[in-house]
Amino acid sequence: MYRSHNCGELKISHINKEVTLAGWVQKTRDKGFMIWVDLRDRYGITQLIFDESRTDKAVFELAKSLGREFVIQVKGTVIERESKNPNMATGDIEILVSELTVLNAAVTPPFTIEDETDGGEDIRMKYRYLDIRRNPVKNSLLFRHKVAQEVRNYLSAKDFCEVETPYLIKSTPEGARDFVVPSRMNPGQFYALPQSPQTFKQLLMVGGMDKYFQIVKCFRDEDLRADRQPEFTQIDCEMAFVEQEDILNVFEGLTRHLLKEIKGIEVAKFPRMTYDHAMRTYGNDKPDIRFGMEFGELNQFSKHKEFPVFNAAELVVGIAVPGAGEYTRKEIDGLIDWVKRPQVGASGMVYVKCNEDGTYKSSVDKFYDQDDLSNWAKTTGAKAGDMIFVLSGPADKTRAQLSALRMELATRLGLRKPEEFAPLWVVDFPLLEFDEESGRYHAMHHPFTSPKPEDMHLLPTDPGKVRANAYDMVLNGNEIGGGSIRIHDKETQQLMFKYLGFTEEEARNQFGFLMDAFQFGAPPHGGLAFGLDRLVAILGGQETIRDFIAFPKNNSGRDVMIDAPSVIDDKQLEELSIKVDSKP
Amino acid sequence: MYRSHNCGELKISHINKEVTLAGWVQKTRDKGFMIWVDLRDRYGITQLIFDESRTDKAVFELAKSLGREFVIQVKGTVIERESKNPNMATGDIEILVSELTVLNAAVTPPFTIEDETDGGEDIRMKYRYLDIRRNPVKNSLLFRHKVAQEVRNYLSAKDFCEVETPYLIKSTPEGARDFVVPSRMNPGQFYALPQSPQTFKQLLMVGGMDKYFQIVKCFRDEDLRADRQPEFTQIDCEMAFVEQEDILNVFEGLTRHLLKEIKGIEVAKFPRMTYDHAMRTYGNDKPDIRFGMEFGELNQFSKHKEFPVFNAAELVVGIAVPGAGEYTRKEIDGLIDWVKRPQVGASGMVYVKCNEDGTYKSSVDKFYDQDDLSNWAKTTGAKAGDMIFVLSGPADKTRAQLSALRMELATRLGLRKPEEFAPLWVVDFPLLEFDEESGRYHAMHHPFTSPKPEDMHLLPTDPGKVRANAYDMVLNGNEIGGGSIRIHDKETQQLMFKYLGFTEEEARNQFGFLMDAFQFGAPPHGGLAFGLDRLVAILGGQETIRDFIAFPKNNSGRDVMIDAPSVIDDKQLEELSIKVDSKP
Repeated sequence: MYRSHNCGELKISHINKEVTLAGWVQKTRDKGFMIWVDLRDRYGITQLIFDESRTDKAVFELAKSLGREFVIQVKGTVIERESKNPNMATGDIEILVSELTVLNAAVTPPFTIEDETDGGEDIRMKYRYLDIRRNPVKNSLLFRHKVAQEVRNYLSAKDFCEVETPYLIKSTPEGARDFVVPSRMNPGQFYALPQSPQTFKQLLMVGGMDKYFQIVKCFRDEDLRADRQPEFTQIDCEMAFVEQEDILNVFEGLTRHLLKEIKGIEVAKFPRMTYDHAMRTYGNDKPDIRFGMEFGELNQFSKHKEFPVFNAAELVVGIAVPGAGEYTRKEIDGLIDWVKRPQVGASGMVYVKCNEDGTYKSSVDKFYDQDDLSNWAKTTGAKAGDMIFVLSGPADKTRAQLSALRMELATRLGLRKPEEFAPLWVVDFPLLEFDEESGRYHAMHHPFTSPKPEDMHLLPTDPGKVRANAYDMVLNGNEIGGGSIRIHDKETQQLMFKYLGFTEEEARNQFGFLMDAFQFGAPPHGGLAFGLDRLVAILGGQETIRDFIAFPKNNSGRDVMIDAPSVIDDKQLEELSIKVDSKP
Repeated sequence: MYRSHNCGELKISHINKEVTLAGWVQKTRDKGFMIWVDLRDRYGITQLIFDESRTDKAVFELAKSLGREFVIQVKGTVIERESKNPNMATGDIEILVSELTVLNAAVTPPFTIEDETDGGEDIRMKYRYLDIRRNPVKNSLLFRHKVAQEVRNYLSAKDFCEVETPYLIKSTPEGARDFVVPSRMNPGQFYALPQSPQTFKQLLMVGGMDKYFQIVKCFRDEDLRADRQPEFTQIDCEMAFVEQEDILNVFEGLTRHLLKEIKGIEVAKFPRMTYDHAMRTYGNDKPDIRFGMEFGELNQFSKHKEFPVFNAAELVVGIAVPGAGEYTRKEIDGLIDWVKRPQVGASGMVYVKCNEDGTYKSSVDKFYDQDDLSNWAKTTGAKAGDMIFVLSGPADKTRAQLSALRMELATRLGLRKPEEFAPLWVVDFPLLEFDEESGRYHAMHHPFTSPKPEDMHLLPTDPGKVRANAYDMVLNGNEIGGGSIRIHDKETQQLMFKYLGFTEEEARNQFGFLMDAFQFGAPPHGGLAFGLDRLVAILGGQETIRDFIAFPKNNSGRDVMIDAPSVIDDKQLEELSIKVDSKP
């Protein structure tokens, strides 16, 4: 072993002890007759001291040559510091070095290895191994490990069995794009990498493994948006002989356990909200309920006057922004511009200032009197000193716009506190959603989701109204998990494929094995999957997942550190019986 | 919840309790006025009873219609059995059923869901979800989970951090064949699936994450031998600031912990054996040391006479087979035929019977006297009643042949006891091995393995003699893990690539990122990887890994259950900018 202790553990109680440490040179201070070196490893920083009067001359000279990020090993004695540093775990001591070995020299790193680095995103990705030396990234990886361990121990203690499902599976055109893998032994044929282990976990239920989980990589070949990765990690779970309520309770228990163990926060029973309610009240199926600003629908108090904009609108809806009554005209105009940006897409915005004296001043005083505005205030819950912002137009679009405004204002007002956690369940999702592009209904969740039995009769006549036994867990405005009760009989599954536009042959080719399995005694079952990357980021109080992934890819799906993907040998292509259409 | 209890937990203490159970119909016995049903779930079997005189008529009639593997739910009362079954956990009780619901009917399964099934390998793979209902497969999966959990908890408690490394990486022609993944966003370029996270774990060491592990899927596109899978699971580990001895101690500790926790077996310190010693003594770098039959090299006692076969041989080597002195002429001839099969390849075999009276009778009595044979017996450790078998020829080949014979005889003699565990370390592997086909040296372990510093001088002149800081953990004749101390400086790594026949450009293109990383302060490091599939199979006392993998592939790399790989849409191919050379 190159060390007797790590760089984070030596204390006053170790004084006079002979120790061996190894690590990286964080920084050196050379006063001529005295050299201090901060030695860093994964566990902390320990100060080394080389003293012309007490240190061997050769060692002293060698210490002078040390540069940043040199890897060294030292032997020495723990001594008490003259000026202690109470902000450091090892701040009471330093090491008077007697032996120094340079284990590896280092060229100057392209950015500083500090909590606040001078390195930009691109250079940090290229030298990710240096970035990982920095506390914010290192601690995020350690934190991720801790969360994963807690999940595994919690579920294992509840009799869940982690089962590894295959990575080389079958491509199915439904859903997102698959990554595919040409098979050398089966020329012209391809495996696909799993977008999720969905069908395998359902087959495990058919196989009697009634409580399954897996922390597993999944793959989607989609055009990457910010903070999306082509490979991502799921906590994938499934249970048999359960109803929706059982699943919600188990995974609410898991999440409550994580919040308690990892964050020390006790959370009461999670609220449950229907999709419909979430959309009407927050304009969003993943509402952030750490703060209010709930939507007030104003149709009945806004369509009786001569204001043509509202009269023509399907929906008039507003929110009361706490304390925003003092906003200047300029600030208000700024917000109006903000909602009119193409990313939000509102055509305008009405505002009502709620004065301290109980009167109202609005941008539509020409049309609405104090009684009207008082009704708006009541409906949106506005108090004196607040500002009501009102949008109007087609219902779905207007809700989305107002939701964007609500989140933006909450951010500006500091209401999205990273260390506050407000989880909830959103339930009763629609089974299907109409896709304008393809002109047909798509499964909102996936084709294996069970419709609510009481809505089944609507399937032929009003498919968009059919609700599913599907649910999402939402935390601080993010969907962190989602799942459903599955179909477990062949007939319903066939019917579902039919409504999703599969021919019988397509359904058979792609999912015949699953429908066969349902004939051999499939139990009722359901489950859900958490997005681990997002979950750990939120628990860690961060908005972006990238620091919680050791080696992330950039927005073109490239690993810029190893330079992948890359061209491959013609021999490899030939063995795989494929040709590249056009070399890049 | 569909059940109040599972099918494995009800006991005498539950008598008179109202319970709800759900599961599969294992079998029914219909006596006309009385019907018994064995209800099965993951946890066990509980006997249900329907009694014409006590059961509601409709329920009784429905019970008559139940077939094998129907999924049912029952409510009823726990009653004491008239004839108890002490071989069943629930054998003291049965359930007098009051309500019966058929949750899902089942068509007759293609093989019996019993510990000893009538289904052949192929049909069981096609209906793997039914195979998983059988105890031997189900218990293997539960066992695997337990092993994985123990590994994670043990390593986590020792400050190891599980880090997920990427699955979409870069193809390198060195080593086995890669599976590749065409990149849609980078036309003409490919990712590769990792054969191991080797370079990433080394970069984590450079990044300061000094104790890493990961239980991770790896991929090799090789022609499949029996019991090889294109995707397999590794327990991948790496440590920084360690020497070989430290790594051996940590992972010996892990293995000892597993043997104790999982098997209840205490194992003393693992023996350490050099590669050279293992090859000379067992003809094998993964010796099974649960039994003796160590090789005796007989050159000095066999080349002084007129036996031309031995005189022409590079090596004459024998083993003493305990108690085999009684083998008949027919048995001996059978063994001679066995070693002459092409799979073993010996050209003949000499034998010496050690009589109870201390004399010897051999197939070469014409050439050797009792003194010679007595020397052979001493050298091989033969006792009265044993049989010595002697092979001769080129040293390496002869050792391999005798090793095959040794293992075969041990199997026949019942010396390879599945519940006995004899782990050891084999150390000091050669760095390089000569590959006849390519006419050059290849890395025996991989190109990142560190040569022993004291052997470095042999690299230019006698590369085959250079030993590596490489080691394997061997358990019961299987390599269950292997690793090495790595090179951690750019110069040595460059030199190694040169000796492995890389041009500077090839080395730069493929591993430039790693050599760059070594310049920024790489610590000394090393590690190892266990093959999890094999490890759990051996701990489970099995020879084959297939039952320990939920959804294995067959020897053509196919998943016959989901029918993968398969052809994909032309649209998919087009998006990926590839063409199939010839449709199958």
